[in-house]
Amino acid sequence: MTGNKYVITFGLWLTVTFGAQAQKPVEYVDPFIGTTNFSVCNPGAVCPNGLMSVVPFNVMGSDLNVYDKDARWWSAPYEFNNKYFTGFAHVTLSGVGCPELGTLLLMPTAGALDVDYRHYGSTYSGEQAVPGYYANKLDKYGIKCEVTSTLRSSIERFTFRKGQGNILLNIGDGLTNEVGGMVKRVSDTEIEGFRLLGTFCYNSQAVFPMYFVMRVNKRPTETGYWKKQPTMTGVKGQWDTDNGKYKLYKHYGREMAGNEIGYYFSFDCAEGEQIEVQMGVSFVSIANARENLTAEQPTVDFDNVRRKAYNQWNKTLSRITVEGGTEAQRRIFYTALYHTQLHPNILQDVNGQYPKMESAEIGTTRGNRYTVYSLWDTYRNVHQLFTLLYPDKQLDMVRSMIEMYKEWGWMPKWELFGRETWTMEGDPAIPVITDTYLKGLRDFDVNTAYEAFVKSATTPSKDNKMRPDVDPYLAKGYIPLGLYAADQSGDNSVSHALEYYVADYALSQLADALGKKADARHFRRLSSGWHNYYSKEYGTLRPKLANGQFLTPFDPKAGADFTNAPGFHEGSAWNYTFYVPHDIKKLAHVMGGPQQFVDKLQRVFDQNLYDPANEPDIAYPYLFSYFNGQAWRTQQQVARLLEKYYKATPDGIPGNDDCGTMSAWAIFSMIGLYPDCPGSPTYTLTTPVFDRVTLHLDRRFYPAGDIVIEAPHASAQSIYIKGITLGGRRYKSYRVSHADLIKARTLRFDLTEKHQTK
Amino acid sequence: MTGNKYVITFGLWLTVTFGAQAQKPVEYVDPFIGTTNFSVCNPGAVCPNGLMSVVPFNVMGSDLNVYDKDARWWSAPYEFNNKYFTGFAHVTLSGVGCPELGTLLLMPTAGALDVDYRHYGSTYSGEQAVPGYYANKLDKYGIKCEVTSTLRSSIERFTFRKGQGNILLNIGDGLTNEVGGMVKRVSDTEIEGFRLLGTFCYNSQAVFPMYFVMRVNKRPTETGYWKKQPTMTGVKGQWDTDNGKYKLYKHYGREMAGNEIGYYFSFDCAEGEQIEVQMGVSFVSIANARENLTAEQPTVDFDNVRRKAYNQWNKTLSRITVEGGTEAQRRIFYTALYHTQLHPNILQDVNGQYPKMESAEIGTTRGNRYTVYSLWDTYRNVHQLFTLLYPDKQLDMVRSMIEMYKEWGWMPKWELFGRETWTMEGDPAIPVITDTYLKGLRDFDVNTAYEAFVKSATTPSKDNKMRPDVDPYLAKGYIPLGLYAADQSGDNSVSHALEYYVADYALSQLADALGKKADARHFRRLSSGWHNYYSKEYGTLRPKLANGQFLTPFDPKAGADFTNAPGFHEGSAWNYTFYVPHDIKKLAHVMGGPQQFVDKLQRVFDQNLYDPANEPDIAYPYLFSYFNGQAWRTQQQVARLLEKYYKATPDGIPGNDDCGTMSAWAIFSMIGLYPDCPGSPTYTLTTPVFDRVTLHLDRRFYPAGDIVIEAPHASAQSIYIKGITLGGRRYKSYRVSHADLIKARTLRFDLTEKHQTK
Repeated sequence: MTGNKYVITFGLWLTVTFGAQAQKPVEYVDPFIGTTNFSVCNPGAVCPNGLMSVVPFNVMGSDLNVYDKDARWWSAPYEFNNKYFTGFAHVTLSGVGCPELGTLLLMPTAGALDVDYRHYGSTYSGEQAVPGYYANKLDKYGIKCEVTSTLRSSIERFTFRKGQGNILLNIGDGLTNEVGGMVKRVSDTEIEGFRLLGTFCYNSQAVFPMYFVMRVNKRPTETGYWKKQPTMTGVKGQWDTDNGKYKLYKHYGREMAGNEIGYYFSFDCAEGEQIEVQMGVSFVSIANARENLTAEQPTVDFDNVRRKAYNQWNKTLSRITVEGGTEAQRRIFYTALYHTQLHPNILQDVNGQYPKMESAEIGTTRGNRYTVYSLWDTYRNVHQLFTLLYPDKQLDMVRSMIEMYKEWGWMPKWELFGRETWTMEGDPAIPVITDTYLKGLRDFDVNTAYEAFVKSATTPSKDNKMRPDVDPYLAKGYIPLGLYAADQSGDNSVSHALEYYVADYALSQLADALGKKADARHFRRLSSGWHNYYSKEYGTLRPKLANGQFLTPFDPKAGADFTNAPGFHEGSAWNYTFYVPHDIKKLAHVMGGPQQFVDKLQRVFDQNLYDPANEPDIAYPYLFSYFNGQAWRTQQQVARLLEKYYKATPDGIPGNDDCGTMSAWAIFSMIGLYPDCPGSPTYTLTTPVFDRVTLHLDRRFYPAGDIVIEAPHASAQSIYIKGITLGGRRYKSYRVSHADLIKARTLRFDLTEKHQTK
Repeated sequence: MTGNKYVITFGLWLTVTFGAQAQKPVEYVDPFIGTTNFSVCNPGAVCPNGLMSVVPFNVMGSDLNVYDKDARWWSAPYEFNNKYFTGFAHVTLSGVGCPELGTLLLMPTAGALDVDYRHYGSTYSGEQAVPGYYANKLDKYGIKCEVTSTLRSSIERFTFRKGQGNILLNIGDGLTNEVGGMVKRVSDTEIEGFRLLGTFCYNSQAVFPMYFVMRVNKRPTETGYWKKQPTMTGVKGQWDTDNGKYKLYKHYGREMAGNEIGYYFSFDCAEGEQIEVQMGVSFVSIANARENLTAEQPTVDFDNVRRKAYNQWNKTLSRITVEGGTEAQRRIFYTALYHTQLHPNILQDVNGQYPKMESAEIGTTRGNRYTVYSLWDTYRNVHQLFTLLYPDKQLDMVRSMIEMYKEWGWMPKWELFGRETWTMEGDPAIPVITDTYLKGLRDFDVNTAYEAFVKSATTPSKDNKMRPDVDPYLAKGYIPLGLYAADQSGDNSVSHALEYYVADYALSQLADALGKKADARHFRRLSSGWHNYYSKEYGTLRPKLANGQFLTPFDPKAGADFTNAPGFHEGSAWNYTFYVPHDIKKLAHVMGGPQQFVDKLQRVFDQNLYDPANEPDIAYPYLFSYFNGQAWRTQQQVARLLEKYYKATPDGIPGNDDCGTMSAWAIFSMIGLYPDCPGSPTYTLTTPVFDRVTLHLDRRFYPAGDIVIEAPHASAQSIYIKGITLGGRRYKSYRVSHADLIKARTLRFDLTEKHQTK
């Protein structure tokens, strides 16, 4: 027995001593990173690319919350600094800029039943979050809440105090602006129903239903529905004692429908009694929601679900091993990688069924059918990360996109659960799929993809859903101001055209690869139309009028911080001027030469014209490296930006994570590679923050296997590259092709504290 | 060919010449009678005791309507003097005092789609209504609307002008105060869904769903949903362009749910093109609604459905033949009979399924399962009419009531689609079933009925749903003021007790018939407790306090016209004082003797203290006949009341028809018989308005067959009876038992213009 004790002590010592080295990737993840500073991530429980997520909801019901979902533009179910919790939302979005989903709010309470969230919410303490698990304790009720999830189902474990415990499912309130739902009692312990969702980014037609089945594992003493009654006028208002109130339906057991409805279970609880609640969801049917729940949780076993979710996360995050760097950098890094593995998420049920794109029909898939494509964001770096590290996922995502085209005739732009929301602009599917193809992942129907691309690139405006202003673009090479917006301030013509140039450049590359030389020439020519917007007077891009003249007066700084500026969408001319990633050399040329380019770009950083959270300019720091002797500026700026904006704290992401785009920027930047030209199979190199990075490539797609990136840091100040070795040979360039990197298998940076000018 | 033409002409001539004599009962029915004057009948299409009714809805949306459903207490889907039509309601109530049902508003429009009923409604002209058919023409659109129905389904035929035609199903608005529903597109031409209903008479818990399936017979050019968006505040309100408006869902094809939802079909119509719309309903499931529609309308054949409904009505109304009287009297009579054949209506689907009482469970029946029991009203005369003329229906109604008791432990009081609404007071199932049993209809489980009666008559208040104030009634023989109501003005204690006396008298009669002598004595003793309320000071019944003293001050006229009076429900002490129908002789005794009784009763009529539309006093005119030499007063008053209050015009019913109770009063009064003591198998005789009435009794239940009532009128002023012959023999009494009447088979009144005092 004594011996046994020693063994335990020895074990603890091992953990303490070798803990740092032995730590698993998942252990570095801090789901609270990105939960404030408008990064709109959340600490909820979710599996990698899971359809289900279970997220503490704290953005309504009380002045205790600093940020209220209705008091301002708000798009997250959770805010780190808020205090008033009103339940767990089921199925949410992470890192998006518009309010959507975040419904089916499950709340445990104690004592007399109250179904008004303005009353039943509670402050909380003791928050804990690791991948796949979240817990807190509700101050008002002394209830401990724990949640975890599978791909399509959730399980909550609530530990009650002695007395009456209640479990409320609020189907009315949530983050979405869409309303309406149905719930039906199936048995004492099971309910089913659906909730309408959609209108993402105020696209009023992008509506879809979510179906659910929910079970409790203890027989309740009472169950019932509630519905907030409309405010009635006249005689009705005088007589109806429930007028404008939450009415309880205590003796009703059939379908309930309406705008603000809910269901409650009440229990007699012993001290410390645990009640578990399971929910399955589906976007196809209630039957599928039930099948999903039963398949993924054949028993009620919270700890097992939690363990599986955790292990799944560790496996997913283990595609990269990093060594060196600080503890904080490792936390930042793996949390960023975690954030890239949330969206796109799977859409299909366990039986393979999913809602077809823009259709009431149901399809069936063998692989994963993905949804939540925030492509204007993610085409810049997220899909490049998938192509490199998760080629299996990326291929399923590409196949899903092509299926969407087959189903309704257009590639996705900002697809959400089978509906196209038309958020932001451009034709981002082209660079995503081209990039994938050119990097050698080709197990998809590229001809159909190409057909879709040519369709959106050439169909006249009136019939063109993807590029509704393509007519002048095709005729003159640019889009003049004032074609679509009611007033100039809401016009995004330059932003639109810049996206088309990037897409058409990618399309020309794909055409080349497919042997379509004439197409390639045509699209390459179109891709250079950006020069129409270049104003020598201001040295920036500048909106043009229909008569060919530049917009006057013009302020290139207008449009920062989400104010409106004519021609530019959510940004200033400075945020867009360098966004011709496929034509950097030519851009330098029109600017007067490399030095003028570099000086101007340096001014963008020096004069605070750079927005680290705005997609069009996030590749700016890498553009220095296109010019001889200027790569140190890339290394300097990337190091500075990482240091300044990425932190192992809740405010550790510079802004909206945009479905992983900010996180992918950090990941690539921290390992020394960045894909600064979407659709081009290359990376720009910079200084890694880690001494050693191992990319465990999937040998089914990359038979050469792991890539090791080494960068022994002499000090924290060793941020400059003095030499590069690729595949054991000196490498002179700061750009490397995907194929060469894969083939080389090793990449070594020799670092110094003083920057090199050559 | 020439010959053929003559034949047609001859046929027309026949119709014109012999039309009056050959007229069928159904031809006398004018569904517009009772559609104003707060009688709350409607001219819609319905089959005898049909679940489905299709009713023009004109009580919302415009100041053109004199009566708006929300501007005042209002309980009818239609008002004769209103002008603004907003569609056809499906499944409605006739002659009830609280707003309920009247939803699924189907509206044809023309031109651009507008789904706001404040805009899309129309004035109309050319209204036509015969049993089972209604038509009008919409002035705004030039659309002719025709509707007809089967037991559980409807068919509408809309004749459009050339151009865009629209068919809207408004699932949000209606007469009920309950909200919420669901609708789902099944195909281009079919939708399905449900609507929550209930809260009848502001019983907030009496909620139930109605399921429907609807089909159009032409392929639409466009379909979609609408939902009125809640008014949003803050940023949502600024950004959501549909904020507070009717939003169209043009590209959505799954389930829609919410408070104010609807579905539209648009068509390209040729001039005069007819589009037919069919709807099936069920209170069990959507599947049953579809099965009902398919079974009852296997094809789309408007004229066939209309013909069948008409023939069904004629068959139902032909149970009585009347000869003589004026044309107006025949119209009044058959329309009254029509009004008694609407409720109770069947509840079960074609497959026999129905929602069990106060349960989410589904039952199956072989006979008809009836619903809509307005028993506080109909126990007085409607069920007596059914027992005499429609014994098959009455037996199914009794069996349905007993099943309800078996299903949830209580007899119905005011049952509505499987929910007990607890409207009005008393224990009316007892007199209904006792009356049926004592009149010889005994093919039901009388022992279970008796068990139910004893339960409600003896269970202490705290567990007694039917008689919640029975404790003092059992202890002291009366209910003191102030037991339940928050203030005295809302207290109905005397009214409650009076109902219990009547019920317990009936129960004593049933106990006697079942050989339960002790029970019979007990309940007979209880039934005489009314004397506790008799105030010598006022000569009326008068509320009592808990200390046994009478309420002071007291105004026996208070409570008229639906104002509140302590102790009395919807009436004054005068409306209730003579309501001890089982103890008239004793009442006369406490009043000082027959003459005092007669004088006082006469004063009630002379001083306008009688309310012809208030149930407790409607048998008053018959009470004179209990006393020697006073029967002429009955004959005089009945003739006067019929003349004054019953007319062949829309205002031809004195007030709320109360599910046929006013109509049944007219029917019995017009044929010379009135069942003035519910639960007692007797009729009081009075002067018929017809020369000859033949009651075609159902020989399965009354093997003796038809009863002929003859009353040859020398003149319209021949309203007094000078002699009665029953079964060919002189008859001295003005009261006859049901058994004697059946046996006699003939009843003859000899009339005179001068009343007899002997």
